[in-house]
Amino acid sequence: MSRFDGRTPDQLRPITIERGWSKHAEGSVLVSFGDTRVLCTASATQGVPRWRKGSGEGWVTAEYSMLPRATNTRGDRESVRGKIGGRTHEISRLIGRSLRAVIDFKALGENTVVLDCDVLQADGGTRTAAITGAYVALVDAVAYMQANHFFKAKAQPVTGSVAAVSVGIVGGVPLLDLAYEEDVKAGTDMNVVCTGDGRFVEVQGTAEGAPFDRAELDALLELASAGCVDLALAQQLALAD
Amino acid sequence: MSRFDGRTPDQLRPITIERGWSKHAEGSVLVSFGDTRVLCTASATQGVPRWRKGSGEGWVTAEYSMLPRATNTRGDRESVRGKIGGRTHEISRLIGRSLRAVIDFKALGENTVVLDCDVLQADGGTRTAAITGAYVALVDAVAYMQANHFFKAKAQPVTGSVAAVSVGIVGGVPLLDLAYEEDVKAGTDMNVVCTGDGRFVEVQGTAEGAPFDRAELDALLELASAGCVDLALAQQLALAD
Amino acid sequence: MSRFDGRTPDQLRPITIERGWSKHAEGSVLVSFGDTRVLCTASATQGVPRWRKGSGEGWVTAEYSMLPRATNTRGDRESVRGKIGGRTHEISRLIGRSLRAVIDFKALGENTVVLDCDVLQADGGTRTAAITGAYVALVDAVAYMQANHFFKAKAQPVTGSVAAVSVGIVGGVPLLDLAYEEDVKAGTDMNVVCTGDGRFVEVQGTAEGAPFDRAELDALLELASAGCVDLALAQQLALAD
Amino acid sequence: MSRFDGRTPDQLRPITIERGWSKHAEGSVLVSFGDTRVLCTASATQGVPRWRKGSGEGWVTAEYSMLPRATNTRGDRESVRGKIGGRTHEISRLIGRSLRAVIDFKALGENTVVLDCDVLQADGGTRTAAITGAYVALVDAVAYMQANHFFKAKAQPVTGSVAAVSVGIVGGVPLLDLAYEEDVKAGTDMNVVCTGDGRFVEVQGTAEGAPFDRAELDALLELASAGCVDLALAQQLALAD
Amino acid sequence: MSRFDGRTPDQLRPITIERGWSKHAEGSVLVSFGDTRVLCTASATQGVPRWRKGSGEGWVTAEYSMLPRATNTRGDRESVRGKIGGRTHEISRLIGRSLRAVIDFKALGENTVVLDCDVLQADGGTRTAAITGAYVALVDAVAYMQANHFFKAKAQPVTGSVAAVSVGIVGGVPLLDLAYEEDVKAGTDMNVVCTGDGRFVEVQGTAEGAPFDRAELDALLELASAGCVDLALAQQLALAD
Amino acid sequence: MSRFDGRTPDQLRPITIERGWSKHAEGSVLVSFGDTRVLCTASATQGVPRWRKGSGEGWVTAEYSMLPRATNTRGDRESVRGKIGGRTHEISRLIGRSLRAVIDFKALGENTVVLDCDVLQADGGTRTAAITGAYVALVDAVAYMQANHFFKAKAQPVTGSVAAVSVGIVGGVPLLDLAYEEDVKAGTDMNVVCTGDGRFVEVQGTAEGAPFDRAELDALLELASAGCVDLALAQQLALAD
Repeated sequence: MSRFDGRTPDQLRPITIERGWSKHAEGSVLVSFGDTRVLCTASATQGVPRWRKGSGEGWVTAEYSMLPRATNTRGDRESVRGKIGGRTHEISRLIGRSLRAVIDFKALGENTVVLDCDVLQADGGTRTAAITGAYVALVDAVAYMQANHFFKAKAQPVTGSVAAVSVGIVGGVPLLDLAYEEDVKAGTDMNVVCTGDGRFVEVQGTAEGAPFDRAELDALLELASAGCVDLALAQQLALAD
Repeated sequence: MSRFDGRTPDQLRPITIERGWSKHAEGSVLVSFGDTRVLCTASATQGVPRWRKGSGEGWVTAEYSMLPRATNTRGDRESVRGKIGGRTHEISRLIGRSLRAVIDFKALGENTVVLDCDVLQADGGTRTAAITGAYVALVDAVAYMQANHFFKAKAQPVTGSVAAVSVGIVGGVPLLDLAYEEDVKAGTDMNVVCTGDGRFVEVQGTAEGAPFDRAELDALLELASAGCVDLALAQQLALAD
Repeated sequence: MSRFDGRTPDQLRPITIERGWSKHAEGSVLVSFGDTRVLCTASATQGVPRWRKGSGEGWVTAEYSMLPRATNTRGDRESVRGKIGGRTHEISRLIGRSLRAVIDFKALGENTVVLDCDVLQADGGTRTAAITGAYVALVDAVAYMQANHFFKAKAQPVTGSVAAVSVGIVGGVPLLDLAYEEDVKAGTDMNVVCTGDGRFVEVQGTAEGAPFDRAELDALLELASAGCVDLALAQQLALAD
Repeated sequence: MSRFDGRTPDQLRPITIERGWSKHAEGSVLVSFGDTRVLCTASATQGVPRWRKGSGEGWVTAEYSMLPRATNTRGDRESVRGKIGGRTHEISRLIGRSLRAVIDFKALGENTVVLDCDVLQADGGTRTAAITGAYVALVDAVAYMQANHFFKAKAQPVTGSVAAVSVGIVGGVPLLDLAYEEDVKAGTDMNVVCTGDGRFVEVQGTAEGAPFDRAELDALLELASAGCVDLALAQQLALAD
Repeated sequence: MSRFDGRTPDQLRPITIERGWSKHAEGSVLVSFGDTRVLCTASATQGVPRWRKGSGEGWVTAEYSMLPRATNTRGDRESVRGKIGGRTHEISRLIGRSLRAVIDFKALGENTVVLDCDVLQADGGTRTAAITGAYVALVDAVAYMQANHFFKAKAQPVTGSVAAVSVGIVGGVPLLDLAYEEDVKAGTDMNVVCTGDGRFVEVQGTAEGAPFDRAELDALLELASAGCVDLALAQQLALAD
Repeated sequence: MSRFDGRTPDQLRPITIERGWSKHAEGSVLVSFGDTRVLCTASATQGVPRWRKGSGEGWVTAEYSMLPRATNTRGDRESVRGKIGGRTHEISRLIGRSLRAVIDFKALGENTVVLDCDVLQADGGTRTAAITGAYVALVDAVAYMQANHFFKAKAQPVTGSVAAVSVGIVGGVPLLDLAYEEDVKAGTDMNVVCTGDGRFVEVQGTAEGAPFDRAELDALLELASAGCVDLALAQQLALAD
């Protein structure tokens, strides 16, 4: 059985990670998972939010957003509506938590990195592409900070890599890295965030249709773990350039 | 090893589910998981949101909120700040999805149930208590709707029960139903929503400290599944009164 | 002539004042005037708002809110609408002014008490129940502050008691403590806030139908004054527990 | 004893009511109570708010606002802050209720009058000046509506006149129509809205300092009633031009 | 050919500039361009916005607003809608820039002047009337500041005068100072802000209908320059009183 | 004299116009003026805003926004702040007006095109790049609409081309198409929008430092007109692909 775009069930879409996309940001990546394209910028600044001042520890946070016409139908701008929707909030928080999982805040010192993940084109998996790209932008920003003495010379604020992928059950078959066309048909949908050494940072599974059982959950976790290994490799290759 | 409140690792806190707490709502429950107390009301109305009109299908949605002094330190009211925070959005969406998983919208007809889950006192597990209590309020509201001919006489809109519990790893030990004191120490934290027949509706696991491995994930899922069985029983007992 | 619930015109509904309802707040009261139920919490903190810093004086403020399904028809949450309605504003201000009337700010020192009055169930008279309950919560919070040395050992920040009741003319008859069913029929509606020694803190009378004359106003003031005496007694009994 | 501006305790400030101040509005009045200057416009439109459609009845509503530099210190614009303050809400609601007390909504038919009361210069008593001026603007707007056949030829939507004045106790002496300088020193402050035939529409008394007793309340009511008689006369004279 | 109100194409409407309109503001002007009436107040305060502190330089800013019934049809209040519209923003910014063009911020010292321009009645050209009147209010406020030693005794913060006028092409004819009736018919519409010595501070031309060519642009600039000379004279006369 | 990047005073930066950048939008262009990069999408939908229904005419509107890290220093997201800033409003309105100048609304029929101009990287001239790119996206969207029978077969809704460029006086020298580094030094700054046949749609000149005279204005207009001719050519070439 083959998928609508010819992939096997355990195959990622073509992944590209283009570093240095923006001349202003300390780290910037245009990441694509197939037709999903997300611009991830990492902005490094000295200082931390008020509630963290004097702690000696840094902070990493993220904001996710979609351009109005990133999707097939134009959506209203959240700035025009005057409030951020629940979905945006949820994804921004997920990205922030995921990246913070691989940061040693003591090593970072009282500095902040803000990750902006703006979806330029959406075709399923925007949050997982955002996490995967944001990690690479974060590494570049931390390198910039190191070169500019934001923190101690030998500190290593980045303790590991992190990547994310979606998995789901479509027509009874567990599939890796769902495109939009597959996502809308998925009975169960899961986003999995893994570190480069194969551990989990976040597991979010949702029954879109019928509830799922333990065997299905296990199959999805296997598929996602394997996908994350491939993504970690793509990140390494991009950073090696 | 015993927990700070004398529980075993796989033991729930005392659970109470008090039906008919409000004289106005079609369904209302004051649920407590230990010192966590959530007032869940279910409001039944004829008609559905605009985007669903003419579909012949109903809708179930939820709003979660915390009273300002439900916690140890007073929080600002979201109405005063003029916007809903990310955490509130995230939990409201989780409750809504969880309850919708056990509703047959065709059977419900073009009617809406809004579940309001207001945390009167918080001590960990507010979202899981909210889901568990909201299910009971929903059942009462649907019974009211049936008695008042909102939908076809023999329709059965509620297709199963749903309950939720938190689990986490504290000091290396997987624990069921974390109280606040345990929650802040947990390295990994997971909320699991199960149907009464033991399947998963939602699995949300987060590494608060170190990433977690597959064995830890499996242990937490076991613990949560068992906890949900107990909660389903408590729901049945409450509904049998 | 007897009222719909069997009361005489000058009779209060059953009043209950349950202290210590919340484990977190420095003072907390669940007050009921018949089926109207309001949770009043008093949160004590050191420091005062910016405009009062350095004055040596404390501050007391209040926020009133209604749960969406406190009433017969579900109301939209003000947090979701993104703004506070005029009625909420008006009542919050009334509660704050009323409680401040019995506080010696110098004695309180530069400390703040916030009174949160959340209506769990509404059946007329929510603002008067809120004021009556908030006073008791405030006394408990001030006692906590005294025990914890927020202010000078012998200071007496609470200078008297305060309670409130509604009165109105229904079918030509002046009635005390209107239930919702009576409130909607009242031609004139008045809320009266009195100190324990029988003086007025606030008198707010409104002609809902025909304007009222001086004789009617006098009759309502008599009725309210007598009602407040009974409420002050109920407050004393609650505080004596 | 004479007041800071030479008035006797029971004397109003110079009152002016200038009709036809705006060329666009159906009714418009620049009213002044001494240095307090309020522009009141009445806008008549066909149709009523959604919740009143099909009732056959009209609606009257009011909005009160202050220019940023109407007062001694510049205040932030509510449009810039993005929300309306509690005081503004409270006064807008008071003006609306007061004017509705003299309107027969059946006679008005399904038409709406919006009263905008914008304080150009504030010197105490802005809300009472607004009510007094708005009544005159409303009468002009209703006359316009009659001339333009908004409602039945012989209908009389305005059933009486309404005016308002502030009273207060300053240094133990009850005073009529407080200027700002007196208002800030008043121990008790009351706004009274009367119909032209001497009945009360609204009585709002607040103890700014010590609570007040029945004798003080009575003295203030006498003073206010007499003041309203004078204001009603001023309204008649203005309308007679 | 004569205009609807009898003016020649290069003639201003009757201009009045009434100083000292408000007793509270340091500078205040009621300016009228025909039936357009704008209340301009200048509020002087010590200190500057945070981003300018320590610079030794002052700041001048402006806020423009329209009363709801300044126009023929009542508009919603921006405070009630909870946000400022694009037009308001645009005009406030234009007024601020225009006035800043004639201020020496070093000479002003770390002081701020806020110009509030509230349109009481609109009949075309509200922004140009606002700029023209605000200049006079600004001069008065700076004089107040000088008298009260806000800045160095010999400093001259106001470096020149500024005035503004609209011009447009109606029916092929370039006209000065458009009234509303003309404005709606104008194919090209331009607002020009000039200094008293005839230089340009701002030129904003917009093709409302067909694009305009260089000759038309030149004709409009001539007309506007001449109009600004007359307005500068009117300002001088007002200030000479 | 040569500019910091080697250009002559009358030379544009390298201009690229990349069509079909997004797979979802009916028209989409990534336009760059040097390092300024703007993604312009045109979304075509049937129907018009409420106020235009039944007119038989279409509508074109625009929204401009900047990604938070498009600039050298990260800016707050307007969606997070909950309101749109004045600069954003002003530019969105300018883009909309400019594009509407070349549309025949009757020919477009009751259809709407929304132009989203999102600045991915800013280096001066973002609004002029946005207008220039949006025109090309608009042409593509109208072609899509024609192919899909949104309007009459032979209708020609686009009546001409439109492009925009900035000009300014830096160190006494008039320069075309200012980069950010030049923009901050410019004494006078002007944005000019021209049609393909050399007429003006919008002229907005601002004295950032000293006011400018007529000779300077004329020099800038010459420069801008010539620049727009080049941009119109670049648009034609892009559309010819």
